[in-house]
Amino acid sequence: MRKEGFGELVSLAQALKIMDSFITPLLDEEVELGNSLFRVLAADIISPISVPHFRKSAMDGFAVIASDTFGANDTHPKRLTIIDTIRAGMVSKKSITHSHCTEITTGAPIPEGADAVIMVECTEDKIQNPKSQIQMLEDGKQRTEQKEKELIIYKSVAPGDNVIEIGSDIKCGTLVFSKGTLLNSRYTGVLAAMGISSIRVKNKPIVGVLSTGNEIIASGNPLVDGKIYDINSRTLIDALIEQNCEPINLGLVKDNKAELKNKILDSINTCDLLLISGGSSLGTEDLMKEIISEIGELLVHGIAVKPGKPTIIAKILGKPVIGLPGHPTSALSDFYILVLPVIKKMLGINPQEVQPQVEIIEAELNRKVVSTIGRYEFLAVKIDVVQGKKYAAPVLRGSSAITTLATADGFIEISENTEVLTKGEIVKVKLF
Amino acid sequence: MRKEGFGELVSLAQALKIMDSFITPLLDEEVELGNSLFRVLAADIISPISVPHFRKSAMDGFAVIASDTFGANDTHPKRLTIIDTIRAGMVSKKSITHSHCTEITTGAPIPEGADAVIMVECTEDKIQNPKSQIQMLEDGKQRTEQKEKELIIYKSVAPGDNVIEIGSDIKCGTLVFSKGTLLNSRYTGVLAAMGISSIRVKNKPIVGVLSTGNEIIASGNPLVDGKIYDINSRTLIDALIEQNCEPINLGLVKDNKAELKNKILDSINTCDLLLISGGSSLGTEDLMKEIISEIGELLVHGIAVKPGKPTIIAKILGKPVIGLPGHPTSALSDFYILVLPVIKKMLGINPQEVQPQVEIIEAELNRKVVSTIGRYEFLAVKIDVVQGKKYAAPVLRGSSAITTLATADGFIEISENTEVLTKGEIVKVKLF
Repeated sequence: MRKEGFGELVSLAQALKIMDSFITPLLDEEVELGNSLFRVLAADIISPISVPHFRKSAMDGFAVIASDTFGANDTHPKRLTIIDTIRAGMVSKKSITHSHCTEITTGAPIPEGADAVIMVECTEDKIQNPKSQIQMLEDGKQRTEQKEKELIIYKSVAPGDNVIEIGSDIKCGTLVFSKGTLLNSRYTGVLAAMGISSIRVKNKPIVGVLSTGNEIIASGNPLVDGKIYDINSRTLIDALIEQNCEPINLGLVKDNKAELKNKILDSINTCDLLLISGGSSLGTEDLMKEIISEIGELLVHGIAVKPGKPTIIAKILGKPVIGLPGHPTSALSDFYILVLPVIKKMLGINPQEVQPQVEIIEAELNRKVVSTIGRYEFLAVKIDVVQGKKYAAPVLRGSSAITTLATADGFIEISENTEVLTKGEIVKVKLF
Repeated sequence: MRKEGFGELVSLAQALKIMDSFITPLLDEEVELGNSLFRVLAADIISPISVPHFRKSAMDGFAVIASDTFGANDTHPKRLTIIDTIRAGMVSKKSITHSHCTEITTGAPIPEGADAVIMVECTEDKIQNPKSQIQMLEDGKQRTEQKEKELIIYKSVAPGDNVIEIGSDIKCGTLVFSKGTLLNSRYTGVLAAMGISSIRVKNKPIVGVLSTGNEIIASGNPLVDGKIYDINSRTLIDALIEQNCEPINLGLVKDNKAELKNKILDSINTCDLLLISGGSSLGTEDLMKEIISEIGELLVHGIAVKPGKPTIIAKILGKPVIGLPGHPTSALSDFYILVLPVIKKMLGINPQEVQPQVEIIEAELNRKVVSTIGRYEFLAVKIDVVQGKKYAAPVLRGSSAITTLATADGFIEISENTEVLTKGEIVKVKLF
């Protein structure tokens, strides 16, 4: 009797489509901005203010009426009276009229009447007799200051020079970030700039991780022949943390139907997604299929991918369950090509962020690679940089090796229709 | 009187060298493997076991003596007696002798005597009359099983085929990861494979973040002219979290010498590094210089970088203090070019990981850029991908704009000796 096969394998695209059809988006919650790093926006962000919300100086210098400086140069400097000093954080109530100016620091508000700032480096100031200065004022007003200074200007400025206009960075009422944006430190900075102190974000995906297989033992246990330490729980849980999920470590279960079924029933309701990493023993898959037939719906058994063929997709009590192969390489490959898209779908992450093209680098393949027609292949590669040029070196395939995968920097996707990648070919590497 | 300058600016390389000279490495601590993600190894990892630690099967099939299969093909199959079944996690006590084999699953230990595994797909098995089979055994031993099966083999295998040797992945006693390695999910998986349950890692750098400036207000406060919301605390704290540090938010302090000095004295002992983000008001820098002259040592004031010139490096009570400019762009630029190398130095991260070449991508500059001789420039760029080709689009420079920076994907470093980058030039972009 020949071993039973998988029946017809579904393609990776079909598998993703099947998952898409029953994944429900996560609910959302309000968090303080200080806890929003790595979270995904659940609503568009419309700016409540303009940034800056006042006209401000881009330089240390003097706020002037630009036309007062026209024609100024080293031999024919212009002279203005300094009527005030505005430091950042202050406001001046003194309007600028012709022949007058105000000392201003970077970030300080431009006083009324001024339309440009001349850089301090293009000027010189000196203390004048304040009385005589006052008498020269065009508006004729009396000043109470005991001293005033004269500014000598050696260069002209045009209207608008060194003035940052209201809303030049962010206009009040405009869309700043779309729903589905994953927040990094630069984005939270922008939210802070608008004075936003709390935002709505998607709940973190709660993902259960269960390892099965009679050969798998937890660290700390004595190592006997035939047994191996659990790798996948660690890798999957940490990969989930890297992807900002909340993993639940459901531990190890032997290939025992009652135990496995109870564990699934006990935990499925607390998870948004359940990952079951199978041992490589033949028994696990059969047990999984039996359990699913009793309490759920088997949607996919076997995907045309390499590695990762014996993958199971099921729906148990309405929740998505992915049965990953026991081989660490296969489990991790499935994580990147199958689990990650599901997580991003749940979070409503913008499609263009699902595979940000920026994190795909091009490299020259350092040897010929033969693949299989009809199967998508996930090929882990290490990037070697030689004289500034990037080479993609495929790491060992088809084994349970974990160290080689650890040294990989990313992976190449070889499509179902590709049989050979030639040495020297430029390949696109998705970084881990 | 012309404004006081910075005196002689030091180069970025000099600034880094000065910091290097007085930074002390962090202490280390023991953590459970489950809490080791994103931590930095404080000691080399030498494998305590071989992985795998027993010879195992890479396939589902039959463990055989390879020479028994020589010459097998579809028309002249070979026949062997199946004496046992070994599933993963089990051990068989039955040695394989000529004309015998044992059914074996992927990951199960190879029984004694066997030197290869033939894939199940190249075989067929059927139940035989056990008595007659036993009489044919070469070793003449009596068998007690009531039923035995015959295996028909249609293909030969060579010795070693589908056998994973002891230590083929990791040899016992070899160096697996060096001290200074930053752990990701693939690395923690390798540690799990070796049964390691706790490791020594570097303490997380504790970094104080203090914002100063009379114009800066915290979110929630009413926005009046001249005031702006604090951006740098948020950006710096979140950037520190992204770099696996433990930031301490020291809040906002006005440009008041006593207040600022007390805050520094109160917090410096709890920090490994203190970042003080200045307001853009002129006062802050002077205050900082005065305070440092009283309680510390001013090492650098002014670096030949753009942006970020008014940066201060000081040593206060033996601790490194970096005074960052108030402009969000400048503060973030300083973070990447100055703070990050300091953090990596404290953590003892391997030098080659300080600027992993993998995360540098090449792109075509989409316009001419003019820089300044004698100043290193940090130029934030957005990567646009058009028909699979990457273009680097510089974002707005020299302003306090924060949104443009948020949309950037990374930065170009323009050296002190470069004046012009031409449009179409290939530039190296370091991703954020």
